[in-house]
Amino acid sequence: MFVVSAPGKVILYGEHAVVYGVPAIAASVSLHMYMFVVDSSDPDVIELDFPEVGLVRKWRRSELPWSSVSEAGKLHQKLDPEVHLALKTLLAPVTDPFENAASHAFLYLYLHLCSESSAGQRFVTRSTLPVGAGLGSSASYSVGLAAALLKLSGKIQDPSTSLSAENLELINGWSFLGESCIHGNPSGIDNIVATRGGAVLYERGAAHGSSKIEPYDSFPPLGLILTNTKVPRQTSQLVSDVGTLKSQLPEIVEPILNAIAAVVSRADGLIRSNCSAEELNESLRELAQINHGLLVSLGVSHPSLERVRQIAHELEIGQTKLTGAGGGGCAITIVDGEVSGKRFNMLKMALGDEFDLFETELGGRGVGMANLSSSFETDQISQLKDARDFHELGNWVYW
Amino acid sequence: MFVVSAPGKVILYGEHAVVYGVPAIAASVSLHMYMFVVDSSDPDVIELDFPEVGLVRKWRRSELPWSSVSEAGKLHQKLDPEVHLALKTLLAPVTDPFENAASHAFLYLYLHLCSESSAGQRFVTRSTLPVGAGLGSSASYSVGLAAALLKLSGKIQDPSTSLSAENLELINGWSFLGESCIHGNPSGIDNIVATRGGAVLYERGAAHGSSKIEPYDSFPPLGLILTNTKVPRQTSQLVSDVGTLKSQLPEIVEPILNAIAAVVSRADGLIRSNCSAEELNESLRELAQINHGLLVSLGVSHPSLERVRQIAHELEIGQTKLTGAGGGGCAITIVDGEVSGKRFNMLKMALGDEFDLFETELGGRGVGMANLSSSFETDQISQLKDARDFHELGNWVYW
Repeated sequence: MFVVSAPGKVILYGEHAVVYGVPAIAASVSLHMYMFVVDSSDPDVIELDFPEVGLVRKWRRSELPWSSVSEAGKLHQKLDPEVHLALKTLLAPVTDPFENAASHAFLYLYLHLCSESSAGQRFVTRSTLPVGAGLGSSASYSVGLAAALLKLSGKIQDPSTSLSAENLELINGWSFLGESCIHGNPSGIDNIVATRGGAVLYERGAAHGSSKIEPYDSFPPLGLILTNTKVPRQTSQLVSDVGTLKSQLPEIVEPILNAIAAVVSRADGLIRSNCSAEELNESLRELAQINHGLLVSLGVSHPSLERVRQIAHELEIGQTKLTGAGGGGCAITIVDGEVSGKRFNMLKMALGDEFDLFETELGGRGVGMANLSSSFETDQISQLKDARDFHELGNWVYW
Repeated sequence: MFVVSAPGKVILYGEHAVVYGVPAIAASVSLHMYMFVVDSSDPDVIELDFPEVGLVRKWRRSELPWSSVSEAGKLHQKLDPEVHLALKTLLAPVTDPFENAASHAFLYLYLHLCSESSAGQRFVTRSTLPVGAGLGSSASYSVGLAAALLKLSGKIQDPSTSLSAENLELINGWSFLGESCIHGNPSGIDNIVATRGGAVLYERGAAHGSSKIEPYDSFPPLGLILTNTKVPRQTSQLVSDVGTLKSQLPEIVEPILNAIAAVVSRADGLIRSNCSAEELNESLRELAQINHGLLVSLGVSHPSLERVRQIAHELEIGQTKLTGAGGGGCAITIVDGEVSGKRFNMLKMALGDEFDLFETELGGRGVGMANLSSSFETDQISQLKDARDFHELGNWVYW
């Protein structure tokens, strides 16, 4: 019995501009998706549970489309269309799009990494990361899935003190296929951040497959408050609105995109310079303010995001920026080193229950694993509440 | 007995960027400074009253430095240094800088436009425009002063239905000298807006005296909510902070200034196109949002300004933008045509007593004059409260 974990991600700089070829910087956020692998009560049954979203699915292993798999265990860059189609057929009765996608990714990886003769297992997902809030939850899930199944299949040996670079390549590669099951055509940025943690520079290529992702060698973890406004947003609508603005007012929007590109470039240089965490923190806060203002100019902020920003500013907590598509969704506040839990609670109280707040870290570690002690009871899984509970489960190894 | 009035001004687009040669657009705001000219109780005494700021000053006309004036009644582009010096000496005992400046401007214009043999008068200033809030109150005062003294001296005949272009030239020219007494080296933008109303394009020249001011032929009055955050700001500090940011991050700040320049240029084109008030309103609101975001990027907003913006946005009242130097001071909300008094009151209530709100107009009329009826009692002046009271004093003629 073991558990794996993978962090979420936020866009630090460059959202929206990334659509027009400007690079973006994404970083991990230390809220994790956890996947427990425990014995199933029925040895022929595999079970996928995700209590946070009410998902419970069971399959008899003997009824899975094993015959569609031609190259089990071999990592490709794209989905095998035959397996993909067989799973589409199998999962046609699962009408909830979230359950369907989560099951599809799970079974695709299971069929490739496990065998018909494997033992029965329960795969229980728990999450301290909000799901569907633009924080890369599907990638964290896919990374957790890949890591769990790779360990189960023996492709990743029990790591002693850390995961190897080869382990990481495997996890990232298979999680990309999981993401492909869920999203069709993922950028790959979310799963690499969920795998490696830290931060990456991403540049969307003009042609399919020509995108570039460059992970940073080091990124010191920085104090972060993540606020989920819980205002539903339509990413595609927001992207299209910025496109309309750009075509109507190109002479205004182009210099704004140039300014965003310069913000990203400045941040990129700072991160590569290996300056101190204090210096980096101060500069990243200033750049967050600039980037946020530019996003306001593009019309993608929202009163709920401005409220977070205004109250955090009044409480002198740090610099707040919308992250991702905007129009609701999440805000990140890069705190200056000395923000106490007391001030976090003041922010939480001032914002009220409409908002979910998380005191967390930017640029923390990536995928992790821990063996569960023999005394661990599966009933305990549903009782775990916050990051500390998960942390105390065993001796974790991380990338 | 008569009364003159002059409006305040706001910067619509281009503040801060104007320092770096980007043009700015300023527009009148229909909150006015009023100057009453009524008989003095002592025929040898002139009296300057400004109850809003506690100013009461009296001079015997015979004690004024008439001999320093060499070209009475002749309009120059600069202050006469001899008169300026004589007044400095006369006013040396007036230590309050506001009283000193207001008295200096008044006496400079009085010495040039009136004569030793004029009758005694009281000049009573009242204001519905906040004083010292970046709304051009000193220029409104200077314009009121110039108009009042020009009328008193007979250089402006009793206007029948409107003020002539020649009247306007005189008022603007003399008010610039009043502004020069107060500010030393004024740009001339505030007094031209207070004189003409409407809106103007202003471009600061590299060399002294090379600035350009182009009034727009027409600017339809638009609904505006003006909010004074009453947060004190230091214009010079904010201007210097933007300068520091520009020298540290030129590759980011220059495209931001380019974007502001494009906003101003777009607004300029729209105003000149004589499009409908509805179209103009909609476009100016969009440009206000863009310009505000760019000012946030430059770091000159303030939580109090963001609060106004956020609540006005939630109440769907219109687009809010900081105006002027930022860091506190005033915000303008360009309302869409249909905002009711009810929604204005909701905004007022939500913001609370910390803020002063004015339901007013952008781009309204300029300098105005009205003869007071013979039944008017000077005691009434201090009882006038809001714009309506002043409006009902007589038959106003405006530019």
